[in-house]
Amino acid sequence: MGGDFAPANVVAGACLALRGAAGRFRVALVGPEDTIRAALADCARQPGGFMPPDDHYTIIHAPDVIDMHDSATAAVKTKRRSSISVGLYEHKAGTVHGFVSAGNTGAVMSAATLILGRIEGIGRPTIGALVPTPKTPCLMVDAGANVDCRPRHLLEFGIMGSIYMSSMFNIPTPRVGLLSIGEEDSKGNAQSLAALQLFRSSTLNFVGNVEGRDILTGDLDVVVCDGFVGNVILKFGESVPKFFKAKFQGFAKANLWNTAIALVARKGLRSVMKELDYQEHGGVPLLGVNGVCIIGHGKSTPRAIMNMIYRAEEVIQKSVNSHIQDSIAHTDAQA
Amino acid sequence: MGGDFAPANVVAGACLALRGAAGRFRVALVGPEDTIRAALADCARQPGGFMPPDDHYTIIHAPDVIDMHDSATAAVKTKRRSSISVGLYEHKAGTVHGFVSAGNTGAVMSAATLILGRIEGIGRPTIGALVPTPKTPCLMVDAGANVDCRPRHLLEFGIMGSIYMSSMFNIPTPRVGLLSIGEEDSKGNAQSLAALQLFRSSTLNFVGNVEGRDILTGDLDVVVCDGFVGNVILKFGESVPKFFKAKFQGFAKANLWNTAIALVARKGLRSVMKELDYQEHGGVPLLGVNGVCIIGHGKSTPRAIMNMIYRAEEVIQKSVNSHIQDSIAHTDAQA
Repeated sequence: MGGDFAPANVVAGACLALRGAAGRFRVALVGPEDTIRAALADCARQPGGFMPPDDHYTIIHAPDVIDMHDSATAAVKTKRRSSISVGLYEHKAGTVHGFVSAGNTGAVMSAATLILGRIEGIGRPTIGALVPTPKTPCLMVDAGANVDCRPRHLLEFGIMGSIYMSSMFNIPTPRVGLLSIGEEDSKGNAQSLAALQLFRSSTLNFVGNVEGRDILTGDLDVVVCDGFVGNVILKFGESVPKFFKAKFQGFAKANLWNTAIALVARKGLRSVMKELDYQEHGGVPLLGVNGVCIIGHGKSTPRAIMNMIYRAEEVIQKSVNSHIQDSIAHTDAQA
Repeated sequence: MGGDFAPANVVAGACLALRGAAGRFRVALVGPEDTIRAALADCARQPGGFMPPDDHYTIIHAPDVIDMHDSATAAVKTKRRSSISVGLYEHKAGTVHGFVSAGNTGAVMSAATLILGRIEGIGRPTIGALVPTPKTPCLMVDAGANVDCRPRHLLEFGIMGSIYMSSMFNIPTPRVGLLSIGEEDSKGNAQSLAALQLFRSSTLNFVGNVEGRDILTGDLDVVVCDGFVGNVILKFGESVPKFFKAKFQGFAKANLWNTAIALVARKGLRSVMKELDYQEHGGVPLLGVNGVCIIGHGKSTPRAIMNMIYRAEEVIQKSVNSHIQDSIAHTDAQA
């Protein structure tokens, strides 16, 4: 139970997922037992509410709470009975096959790396973010987990991202680009120039250097950058709709005709603008750990939690991790 | 004479500037003399055309052309009679007080640093870009000139950016933010964390770490980042209107009602979207060289060229460079 609206949204999301799954999987709800039971009862009482059958869920008691203000690594060590730690130990022990959380992203990342360990050959687990495009979404790796990277780490992100997009979107050979400041091989900073050589000698479907303007086109399936750049771009992108809203309000106030246009167009614009908020899409994968982790935004709705659970199911079914392990082993054997 | 539409747009822009200035300054047109004369004649022939009085302009012959495909540093050395080199040597000699170009940005930057030299105490000249916000624009430094920076360089960018915004927009103490991945002092990569300490002990009006989402708000006057990050964000931002256009077309095609809304709203939207194209705003300053250089986009319109000339005039009048020199000397005396 993590996130700004836990346990209500998390429990409600689990109920939605269980109803839709009709017995395909069971869910373990990890957190303070009393509040989980109360949230379950609330779900059942809602109009159109649903109480999953007793044998479709279990509750695992975890009384500690890691909040957004806790230091990620410290919290993992001091709050050993948090839902994050307890859930991940259950995953490590094999009692659950995947882990979904809307809690503190840094804490989930640290705890998962510590408790589950890394896939052999992976130096840095990564968090990817699905960026919307007019076509299939584009996975940006890293989305903020690793701010200082070596060129090898960027290659790992590319390999993991490519396998994720191939598995989850059925793209045979995802197009992978390395984020830089120009298309030519001579363009970039010291880090990207060194990484470019590693990508060029990999077996990825590598399209070369790409620029900031290529991310939203839909012509790429994976964009690789370090987590500093990735975080800055994602947050910049999220802020664009607000900027346009302010500008559009200025336009609407200019004269009566504009006001009328703005009134009519408002709803359509809102739906278009919402697209750029990648957090709407529910859950990003933590790749490179020995386990299946989907991390959601703190403000995740029940629907987003449901989607995260389905996404975890798919990652498990498609054996994403064993594909990553094979691919890294293959890359290292070639080098 | 540089840029995709040289000499026509450059000459037309100079004529517009001279007409508006009504004798405040003179312009030296640097490039192949024949084509400049022909372009001047064209300007005069246009409906509402204007031929500046003979004593308001001079032509300085420069036959070599550096194009967008030339390597910046190589071109400066091999094409010594390009308009960029010739113009900058005239500026160095003091026959002109400022330099404006829509040519190859890298070549202007290299040539200016080589020919004019750096302001004492400045390790890296920088190019800033004015990003639109709902309030005053925000200067992003560096916008792509310096991809690998040391913390000291970032501090220099902050100092130069602050003086530029203070002088050009009459902001007494511009708010300067350091681009990072979180507001807390503990957030950042190795480079930004080290730079943060330098900023904290500077005399700038430093607001601390800022995030990608803060750039477009108008709550900052200067955002400091290295040129890799700056370039990626600016190009990403420029691509957003195209993304929305594609999404909006999808919306418009959904049904007849939407199509009608889209038709009515199109013009307003276009004007709002255009705001994010920072290149529309005509000319970015090259700061830190011993001279006044305004660099424009290759596709600069005559109006943009005119604005660049006016901007150069203002930078000269407001003694931006001597303010920079004083501020850097003060910073270094304190350290």
